[in-house]
Amino acid sequence: MNRYKITVSYDGTDYAGWQVQLNGFAIQESLEKAIQTLTGAKVKVHGSGRTDQGVHARMQVAHFDLENPFKTSVFKKGLNAILPRDIRILKVEMVDPQFHARRSAVSKEYRYFILNTEIMPPFLRRYRTHIRKKLDVNAMKKAAKYLVGKHDFAAFTANPNRVVDRGTIRNLTRLEVIKRGAEIVIIARGEGFLYKMVRSLAGLLIRVGEGAVPPEDAKIILHSRERTARVPTALPEGLFLWRVDY
Amino acid sequence: MNRYKITVSYDGTDYAGWQVQLNGFAIQESLEKAIQTLTGAKVKVHGSGRTDQGVHARMQVAHFDLENPFKTSVFKKGLNAILPRDIRILKVEMVDPQFHARRSAVSKEYRYFILNTEIMPPFLRRYRTHIRKKLDVNAMKKAAKYLVGKHDFAAFTANPNRVVDRGTIRNLTRLEVIKRGAEIVIIARGEGFLYKMVRSLAGLLIRVGEGAVPPEDAKIILHSRERTARVPTALPEGLFLWRVDY
Repeated sequence: MNRYKITVSYDGTDYAGWQVQLNGFAIQESLEKAIQTLTGAKVKVHGSGRTDQGVHARMQVAHFDLENPFKTSVFKKGLNAILPRDIRILKVEMVDPQFHARRSAVSKEYRYFILNTEIMPPFLRRYRTHIRKKLDVNAMKKAAKYLVGKHDFAAFTANPNRVVDRGTIRNLTRLEVIKRGAEIVIIARGEGFLYKMVRSLAGLLIRVGEGAVPPEDAKIILHSRERTARVPTALPEGLFLWRVDY
Repeated sequence: MNRYKITVSYDGTDYAGWQVQLNGFAIQESLEKAIQTLTGAKVKVHGSGRTDQGVHARMQVAHFDLENPFKTSVFKKGLNAILPRDIRILKVEMVDPQFHARRSAVSKEYRYFILNTEIMPPFLRRYRTHIRKKLDVNAMKKAAKYLVGKHDFAAFTANPNRVVDRGTIRNLTRLEVIKRGAEIVIIARGEGFLYKMVRSLAGLLIRVGEGAVPPEDAKIILHSRERTARVPTALPEGLFLWRVDY
């Protein structure tokens, strides 16, 4: 048995998400089909985690097994020739059968991109969340500081019941807000994230930036451990799975 | 009669081009429909020139007339609310009825973007032409120098007969090749361009960069005034109408 690790980049705009859904195409499904076309083998591709509908990955990592070995360089070229242009294989590596894309990951980084301008240039519309109202970046930075660390993030997940087995405590090692001209980037790093957690964190930070929620309330909301309407889920187009570390 | 000048930005990927074609949607048509929805008036939108299927505009300029005046700020907001997100109105101005988007233009600039990497990131695939083979940028720069100036560009148009009325002589005031990391940008500026002229210039420069045509041959090809297979039309996705000056 040969285990392969692949590093994949994708534009999530036209997909129903990483995993096979009832409607629409999934990234995972496209990869499995391409591998089958190339090798003839029906495989299951395991990602480091799911990304939702419309969410992108600069670098997603996945693994799968093949009975017959396949040259990694040929694999990469072949898969890229078969796959649609919005999914690219950046790297193919043969790894130890102990390697597991999700369980072996030690940390993950997401980046949420906001374009804070009057008009959204058409060329960025798929990759940036457009906020017209001028955001107070300092307030956002202040709120972010309250959220960093090991906490119960139940107030920042779309469906806390989905994760009862592992609980809702996560270690958010980094949550930073950076302004680069008209662009505001939220960098979130941690060992793991709850369902829609990054978009919920971004949602609250945007509300804080808009002046709708005082930065200090981030602490109160966090400690409430209850999801309320004060924490909206930010739009998917601005979100990128940035990197997965092993 | 009130004449309006609009500055428009669009992602040409999903359009049949600027002008109404037999198949597919056109940018011009989308603008005319949006203006009609907003004002109730059936207008004809005149662009500074056409862009082909799949070609983008960072800044295209057009004009149209309305019998009843309309506040420009309301116009901009209203049109952007109606138009699809891949077409944005950057500016609306009331202008002298003598102003003509095509005839009043004194110069136009196009930029052709090449990404010279092994793998094309999915997020750039709509806006960059992907060339895998390492291009010799110095050879491209050298070839470009032969082409600058007032010449008969018959060898660089897809259909010289379409322009018999104005001939095939054009003044190419700037043709520059710039390398920025993995990106190569071809900047073409002139008073006017022939049909598919920029993509033909880019097509030859790419061939030169690939080593398939010696840079000196650019001169010979230009002077031949005959379109041959040595000058391919480069793909549309890398081309942007960059600006129109009046």
